[in-house]
Amino acid sequence: MRYLMTFSYDGTLFYGYQKQPGKRTIQSEIEKQLTKINSNKKVSISASGRTDRNVHAINQKAHFDLDKKDPEVIKRSLNKLLPDDIFVKKIELVKDDFHARFSVLKKKYRYKINVGQYNPLERNYVYQYNNELNVDLMKKASKYLIGEHNFKAFTKVDEEKEDYIRKIYEINFFVNDNIVEIEFIGSGFLRYMIRNIVGTLIDIANGKIALDELKNIILSCDRKKAGFQAPACGLYLEDVLY
Amino acid sequence: MRYLMTFSYDGTLFYGYQKQPGKRTIQSEIEKQLTKINSNKKVSISASGRTDRNVHAINQKAHFDLDKKDPEVIKRSLNKLLPDDIFVKKIELVKDDFHARFSVLKKKYRYKINVGQYNPLERNYVYQYNNELNVDLMKKASKYLIGEHNFKAFTKVDEEKEDYIRKIYEINFFVNDNIVEIEFIGSGFLRYMIRNIVGTLIDIANGKIALDELKNIILSCDRKKAGFQAPACGLYLEDVLY
Repeated sequence: MRYLMTFSYDGTLFYGYQKQPGKRTIQSEIEKQLTKINSNKKVSISASGRTDRNVHAINQKAHFDLDKKDPEVIKRSLNKLLPDDIFVKKIELVKDDFHARFSVLKKKYRYKINVGQYNPLERNYVYQYNNELNVDLMKKASKYLIGEHNFKAFTKVDEEKEDYIRKIYEINFFVNDNIVEIEFIGSGFLRYMIRNIVGTLIDIANGKIALDELKNIILSCDRKKAGFQAPACGLYLEDVLY
Repeated sequence: MRYLMTFSYDGTLFYGYQKQPGKRTIQSEIEKQLTKINSNKKVSISASGRTDRNVHAINQKAHFDLDKKDPEVIKRSLNKLLPDDIFVKKIELVKDDFHARFSVLKKKYRYKINVGQYNPLERNYVYQYNNELNVDLMKKASKYLIGEHNFKAFTKVDEEKEDYIRKIYEINFFVNDNIVEIEFIGSGFLRYMIRNIVGTLIDIANGKIALDELKNIILSCDRKKAGFQAPACGLYLEDVLY
């Protein structure tokens, strides 16, 4: 039977989502506990995608195959075994050909920036920019990014021959007191793409990059032309849509 | 010269506010760095009161004496030296007879409870009660606590002959989605008093203690009659008024 699980995690104390020998990662913690539940027969999980070190998830999704069991029972057993910085919200049965990564229609991410005074309580959860930002300028700049583009200028180019075309459907801004939140909805995102876009939007908002330049930066496909990489702690995988 | 500092901290990684040999505490971190700023002549700080292990502060206050220096310069130097889970918001000159503890008029605390699904991202910042609560019943119960009372039933009775009379001015409730926040404004609070009150209010909300019993619990002055002690991570020292 194939199951789809929805889970959240605090990325602060993990070396990212993906399994790595000798490192505490989200994938390895979950697989370890699922394997216990499966009478120690190895279970592998396939997530909608990786998240980097210190990136958080509100609704990450992954599928796995297991002998027939009540999804509620698996969920409860898993939550009892998992460390307190991972939580399984839901487990449901899906068709055998469902794939948590290949079946993705849209992904939604959120990036949080503190534009007020430094807040030690949020240091692992909100990027402590601690300066004012011209959000109107960021909104204007974000329009250039909507639609289908080659986003090579905003990613790490060392992966094997990949295409860099992605489609961004929406970029929405929410301002509450001193917190600016930027929501990204797209077909999928390249490695570091959102953090590099956020850094570029911030560089535009503080005048380091001219608004008009953004079009050329996209066309250049050159990482060095874009802005800085915003830190991981402000980024949340919010939802995955199938 | 006497200075008053306003500072915030994330209590998660501290053994409480107060200095203890060999332990990482907020007081010892600040005194260590202030002493450096004072050309290694020892500086002691006097706070408005202690906070326990894992309790947070948004606006804690403390005074200290130091040779004349620009408060802005002290603040900037301190923030450069302090670890990232303490932040000095403000330093101001005060009169020589000002005392951060004895001059207190009112203190304001906040307690946060998650009544929805477990959230790993808030595990150190919001009490994960993860069950529904009858907030109306808690509000009704809170009325019994307003005013001047002997709060011995809600504290740890091992301190040297102290009087247990305190005055609570206000208890306010704020409900946002799944987070219930309870704000306490009082003349001062005994050790564990807010956490024991919150536990008692929760026990009333879930039916373990009858609403009518609260009056008797207060009069009993007996800790065993009151409810459980709510965990430290949900508690915030929000403000100190002089």
